[in-house]
Amino acid sequence: MGESRVVTFTTDFGLQDPFVGIMHGVVLSIHPHVHIVDICHAVPSFDLLDGAWTLVQSYRYFPPQTVHVVVIDPGVGSARRPILAETENYLFVAPDNGVLSLVEARESRFTVRHIVSESYFLQPVSQTFHGRDIFSPVAAWLSKGVTPAEFGPVITDFVRLPIPRVERLGGNGLRGAVIRVDKFGNLVTNLTAQDVPALSGARPRQFEFLISGKSVVHLRGSYAEGAEDEIFVIAGSSGYLEIAANRASAAEKLQAGAGAEVRVVVY
Amino acid sequence: MGESRVVTFTTDFGLQDPFVGIMHGVVLSIHPHVHIVDICHAVPSFDLLDGAWTLVQSYRYFPPQTVHVVVIDPGVGSARRPILAETENYLFVAPDNGVLSLVEARESRFTVRHIVSESYFLQPVSQTFHGRDIFSPVAAWLSKGVTPAEFGPVITDFVRLPIPRVERLGGNGLRGAVIRVDKFGNLVTNLTAQDVPALSGARPRQFEFLISGKSVVHLRGSYAEGAEDEIFVIAGSSGYLEIAANRASAAEKLQAGAGAEVRVVVY
Amino acid sequence: MGESRVVTFTTDFGLQDPFVGIMHGVVLSIHPHVHIVDICHAVPSFDLLDGAWTLVQSYRYFPPQTVHVVVIDPGVGSARRPILAETENYLFVAPDNGVLSLVEARESRFTVRHIVSESYFLQPVSQTFHGRDIFSPVAAWLSKGVTPAEFGPVITDFVRLPIPRVERLGGNGLRGAVIRVDKFGNLVTNLTAQDVPALSGARPRQFEFLISGKSVVHLRGSYAEGAEDEIFVIAGSSGYLEIAANRASAAEKLQAGAGAEVRVVVY
Repeated sequence: MGESRVVTFTTDFGLQDPFVGIMHGVVLSIHPHVHIVDICHAVPSFDLLDGAWTLVQSYRYFPPQTVHVVVIDPGVGSARRPILAETENYLFVAPDNGVLSLVEARESRFTVRHIVSESYFLQPVSQTFHGRDIFSPVAAWLSKGVTPAEFGPVITDFVRLPIPRVERLGGNGLRGAVIRVDKFGNLVTNLTAQDVPALSGARPRQFEFLISGKSVVHLRGSYAEGAEDEIFVIAGSSGYLEIAANRASAAEKLQAGAGAEVRVVVY
Repeated sequence: MGESRVVTFTTDFGLQDPFVGIMHGVVLSIHPHVHIVDICHAVPSFDLLDGAWTLVQSYRYFPPQTVHVVVIDPGVGSARRPILAETENYLFVAPDNGVLSLVEARESRFTVRHIVSESYFLQPVSQTFHGRDIFSPVAAWLSKGVTPAEFGPVITDFVRLPIPRVERLGGNGLRGAVIRVDKFGNLVTNLTAQDVPALSGARPRQFEFLISGKSVVHLRGSYAEGAEDEIFVIAGSSGYLEIAANRASAAEKLQAGAGAEVRVVVY
Repeated sequence: MGESRVVTFTTDFGLQDPFVGIMHGVVLSIHPHVHIVDICHAVPSFDLLDGAWTLVQSYRYFPPQTVHVVVIDPGVGSARRPILAETENYLFVAPDNGVLSLVEARESRFTVRHIVSESYFLQPVSQTFHGRDIFSPVAAWLSKGVTPAEFGPVITDFVRLPIPRVERLGGNGLRGAVIRVDKFGNLVTNLTAQDVPALSGARPRQFEFLISGKSVVHLRGSYAEGAEDEIFVIAGSSGYLEIAANRASAAEKLQAGAGAEVRVVVY
């Protein structure tokens, strides 16, 4: 049964070096019948928050028992611990730096272990590429059916990342932020449709999103509904509201990127 | 038997977001024993013609019964239909926007169905990511052996893309165009060796390709045959004539790109 | 047994064209049960030395009997031969241009064959894409269990690449070079820890690395140990010494890249 498990990778390694290919090789050397998927290797270098968002919008689309490996690891080789997390349906292998915090926020069960069983590591362990020497082999053995308890003890003092939260302001106002810009230039915010009930329901009300000194007042159901040169709000596929344009980059038009403040006023 | 089918993806999603990884996850969740191949995710955003060329030079190199998923989809969420096409050896899943037109032009059998069986979709269907919610699950079920007829009725009014065709001019002349620039800077045209018989055969004749105000008069059998700084014509691997240079970018040297006019005169 | 073999690809094709996807399709058409891994497709165009380094730091992390395909092939279509190399644990398929030279330097057994059995090629063989028409099908048949001897005779006059070697200078000095810059801006040199024993051992001595007119005098055990704005030497994961910075690009800070001279003085 463990034989058909999937292992995924999310990293900030890019694809210009052989790092990703090497990790695939390590996994296949231990578990030849695994299916490996690259979720994304374009997380900006060392950007834990971007890595956390990338993972949280992806992990639930994989088969139960998938082992998700996340290597955004500015502390590689230092004292930071390698960890293994279990949720109801998935396993995660990552450095203990908070990159799993958004998964934790969504899951009722989130058990974390400190990976200490060095017999599962590739030897000798380098100080600069734990993706190859620790995370990949641990993921391979997990996918092969070794139980999480074999790798180390449960810990509760794991690192949590400060997550930019939506803030309620006076007078029906909200303050959120852009968390990512996607390939099409859509600005993905940390605001959900639930945060702004005025946008949905039977009687949608007038609203205003303020970003980069511009006002966005239209809600569209699809990108194609947007008029030419129009900037609009849309419910994105990952559950978050986006500020977007039809066949054009809202990021470019607004000169806005990750971290930009988004204020919402409902009238 | 359906168990070993291949599913491929061709999109304009790029690799900086987790979109591609998510689609792999959706397919594997439905059909764990499928083999997934990424043909290309670097189609320029919304560029249906580039997507059509990318697909048509690739699809025949895959095993029979491969399911090719193409998601260049500026109309996602609008009324445009999701379609499923069958040729003698392959299945295609795509939005109904003409991105399969070059495949149609090559195939004697090309049966198109409107995908309407929502029970095969991921629910709820978003308005912005049908690659995840419609095209990937339909491809996975197809690869698992569900027959095309299960997904919807045959249609004949599907969209066809206007394809830039080679035009015959007076005096042995032809007018074609550059359809793509490849990674090495080779300018791939829509002209085939059959269009310019003077280039081949027992007695090749003198010719001239005019592009960007420059004249190209040499035909080379391989890139390595080109002299230093020479721009030449070569029969490319996809069946189209290319304007190329040896270890250098013809696109840069000629300052030409996709869409550039190419005139051919044979003497 | 041959059924579970892995085929890898290392090329300078990039991912903006469908070249890589097509090669996967060719392999799967011949051997549906193979596992294909992309080691790296970002080798700079025609850069044999970069391709050789990419391969040599990767190939040993794959299961025994893996078939490594390397296509950096400026001479495609010319008289340069396609070759097949065998080491104790691996098989290699590549053009005969020296791209396997660093593997040869590491291995005690290195038997090279000229691939001449055209019955294993995709027909017709193009003059511009041997990755598709020769190297991929040969790799697929090898992965399926066809023995190397079936493909052609052993040769000994294969091409060897001039490898930039570390040079010993007077007064405890060494002259090496930067061989690659990785995604994080780390400068990977051709110097190993064995070249500079002063760096390790019980009594490390003072040293100085000179690069781009700057002096680097600190050795760090991990990237995270580096102080802010510090440039330091570190033992990289591929066995070579790197010049690096903590969460910053040493390449940018030093304005140095591949080929840059590195002088080492030990006091």
